Amino acid sequence: MAENKKMVEAITSRDEDFAKWYTDIVKKAELVDYSGVKGCMVIRPYGYGIWENIQKDLDRRFKETGVENVYMPMFIPESLLQKEKDHVEGFAPECAWVTIGGSEKLTEKLCVRPTSETLFCEHYAKIINTYRDLPKLYNQWCSVVRWEKTTRPFLRTSEFLWQEGHTMHETAEEAIDETLKMLKVYEDFYRETLAIPAVVGKKTEKEKFAGAEATYTIEPMMHNGVALQGGTTHYFGDGFAKSFDITYQGRDNKLHYPHQTSWGVSTRMIGAIIMVHGDDDGLVLPPRVAPIQVALIPIAQHKEGVLDKVYEVADVLKKDFRVKVDASDKAPGWKFSEYEMKGVPVRVELGPKDIEKNQCVIVRRDNREKIFVSLDNLAEEVQKALDAVHNAMYEKALKNMQEKTSVATSYEEFLDIAENKPGFIKAMWCGEKECEEKLKDVTGGVKSRCIPFEEEHLSDTCVCCGKPAKHMVYWGKQY
Amino acid sequence: MAENKKMVEAITSRDEDFAKWYTDIVKKAELVDYSGVKGCMVIRPYGYGIWENIQKDLDRRFKETGVENVYMPMFIPESLLQKEKDHVEGFAPECAWVTIGGSEKLTEKLCVRPTSETLFCEHYAKIINTYRDLPKLYNQWCSVVRWEKTTRPFLRTSEFLWQEGHTMHETAEEAIDETLKMLKVYEDFYRETLAIPAVVGKKTEKEKFAGAEATYTIEPMMHNGVALQGGTTHYFGDGFAKSFDITYQGRDNKLHYPHQTSWGVSTRMIGAIIMVHGDDDGLVLPPRVAPIQVALIPIAQHKEGVLDKVYEVADVLKKDFRVKVDASDKAPGWKFSEYEMKGVPVRVELGPKDIEKNQCVIVRRDNREKIFVSLDNLAEEVQKALDAVHNAMYEKALKNMQEKTSVATSYEEFLDIAENKPGFIKAMWCGEKECEEKLKDVTGGVKSRCIPFEEEHLSDTCVCCGKPAKHMVYWGKQY
Repeated sequence: MAENKKMVEAITSRDEDFAKWYTDIVKKAELVDYSGVKGCMVIRPYGYGIWENIQKDLDRRFKETGVENVYMPMFIPESLLQKEKDHVEGFAPECAWVTIGGSEKLTEKLCVRPTSETLFCEHYAKIINTYRDLPKLYNQWCSVVRWEKTTRPFLRTSEFLWQEGHTMHETAEEAIDETLKMLKVYEDFYRETLAIPAVVGKKTEKEKFAGAEATYTIEPMMHNGVALQGGTTHYFGDGFAKSFDITYQGRDNKLHYPHQTSWGVSTRMIGAIIMVHGDDDGLVLPPRVAPIQVALIPIAQHKEGVLDKVYEVADVLKKDFRVKVDASDKAPGWKFSEYEMKGVPVRVELGPKDIEKNQCVIVRRDNREKIFVSLDNLAEEVQKALDAVHNAMYEKALKNMQEKTSVATSYEEFLDIAENKPGFIKAMWCGEKECEEKLKDVTGGVKSRCIPFEEEHLSDTCVCCGKPAKHMVYWGKQY
Repeated sequence: MAENKKMVEAITSRDEDFAKWYTDIVKKAELVDYSGVKGCMVIRPYGYGIWENIQKDLDRRFKETGVENVYMPMFIPESLLQKEKDHVEGFAPECAWVTIGGSEKLTEKLCVRPTSETLFCEHYAKIINTYRDLPKLYNQWCSVVRWEKTTRPFLRTSEFLWQEGHTMHETAEEAIDETLKMLKVYEDFYRETLAIPAVVGKKTEKEKFAGAEATYTIEPMMHNGVALQGGTTHYFGDGFAKSFDITYQGRDNKLHYPHQTSWGVSTRMIGAIIMVHGDDDGLVLPPRVAPIQVALIPIAQHKEGVLDKVYEVADVLKKDFRVKVDASDKAPGWKFSEYEMKGVPVRVELGPKDIEKNQCVIVRRDNREKIFVSLDNLAEEVQKALDAVHNAMYEKALKNMQEKTSVATSYEEFLDIAENKPGFIKAMWCGEKECEEKLKDVTGGVKSRCIPFEEEHLSDTCVCCGKPAKHMVYWGKQY
């Protein structure tokens, strides 16, 4: 495995320098390229392939709940953005503004959408008239812009790709149900498709979305114990509806304001995939979104009949899987490390001796386990291997999250864990913003992640101020 | 059919006022909504559903030729746009410029991409090193912005959705092959998927893309005889490569410039669908992109067993088709005209008498033909009907194009046809820009559409100046 080593040396070790390890992977696995445009990235074919698989899977899940896709303009006139007070305060500081169009100075400047609540509301005001028009369950796939000072591929960029769902409902109850339903869709998607476990719950008042009444969040833990806000769903009540004068005639023949939600996930999820599953040899991709699920490597490919057999096998596998045959003139060892770097879940090796025995070798990316299987039921064995990889990846990530989750019942204990043990801290909280701010300041950035739906009773008092506790909160640093 | 009439009256007749008929349809079939943002439209679920089906079909065709999808930033720094002289001259006048980001004035203004040649070139300069890196066959699905004074939904808007392919090749020959191959992909797509025939060929020097050596085009004819530039493919030679210093080490170990192409189609195609196929009752959608392929309408739905049977039939049809059951309390006649307005290719009616006879009624949208078919092989019959609709739509559009294509062999004849008969004019041309400009001016906008690949010899001399003819050209007004 000399060649293998050679490539591996090119990546920084994960435990040595997590940040550098991350940027090494995004470059060497050819996920992104830096562009000349400040804070914007080029998503290369291999990175975009992951996004396409994410989109396909999520889009199906959305549509199964009755969601329809639409497309809104990418520009928001300043006056439209200003219609909802909290919302504009939250977003105005990070807007990019178009001030010149077609060689002329615009009479009103246009914001490049950072999110599209205002545009959806403007449209909903026109198309919602009676309760028969509700619910409206719309989503769009697009890019949004939030001007960032410091950026990191996938995690924080001035432009990123995402989906944003925006729905309108007759009652508050229905809207809250939708908010929770979509959070569940995200949670299922993370677990079933990305093999990523997470903590889910409600954001505190301090951490909720600009203009929302309540924000729910999914918070997976990266390998190094740092959280990533992996997706959020928001319940707006009728605040935007009032600002935008959206009304409907109810079943009682009176005018009412509809209740609103929005929810979104973005290309950040690719960052989560890298940081939850990757190792010192590179990416480890969840089989269900991997652009290449099977790398088929011929051994001694110059020998008669090897390549013919390899292509024959590939044709069979391509019916069910995304397969790449590498018949280039590079050595097998180089190819092994190349596809390990790219995180391909399963490698199939096929050489003259295997052909004689009507077998091949399946090697799993996650644990390097090697098995010999008959060519007669290869597709079945590959499916088994991919499922096993998925399950093992999930279990490993879950174990990491569990091991890196601590309980603090006193202020001193909280500070001690925050300083010495990366990960989540479970601790009781009085409900006051001041305590959140103090804990964040003294720990150098440990923030409330969420109030989980099932709270444990760890102690009676707030870990910060000692007053009676209202909630159990997950705390942690974040990307 | 009283109810039917009522809805139909709401649309302007196609022959009376084509422009108003068009805008009536886009509104009443709920394809778009106008937005408060100048020149930008909201694409509503039914319109976006057509676009999703277009994307799925085209994306498959692209990938079959080896194309990979990527995503480039939406912003182009002014200095980057200026790198290729002809290109910036063509696009700068219609750019939207971001001058403020995150509350600060930018040191360099950023153009919202009108097209992305420059961004692809900047990336290619970094990733192309040797002939082994070629070809690069990249595409992206995104929105672009071209500031427009007057706009019309789908046809001309300040922002629109499209795909843009950008490829790099070792030789000029390979690049030209790619340009023609992608034109063929568009032509096949228009015919096989949109049921739209078209003239294809090469643009004249005057009409080619800013910075291109050659532009090829597909030009379908709308029902009223006006052309729509339906898609273009460009061969750039190595002009951009030189401007952006993109080189590769060739098989001869020397440095060379690669040869480049780009190609794109946009949401304009939805405008083409409307204007080629629509009639006085509304949209007529090509079955292969229709969001609803089958509208299943219960007759006497209050009678016992009708709705049960309808849902049973729907479950069977949903395995193969996009089906909408309308069991609302509106009258069947209202529903008929609603789905006719929406251009649903096939309507299936099912009532108590049909159920007794184990049959149902299939009604085609294009010609209103009604057939009774057994429920035992309904899926097969629906497939037959959809294919028949597709073929008949194509033939009808082809007949329209043929009937509205004239030959002019003299200047007077050209002017006479231009004034009195809408459509394409085939006429000989000397190759000079002056004659193109003169013909356009005297006819109020008849421009060269393209030089077809198979030119006919109509006469020896240019229809405008009388000098020896070089080419046969299709001429016509355009959207």
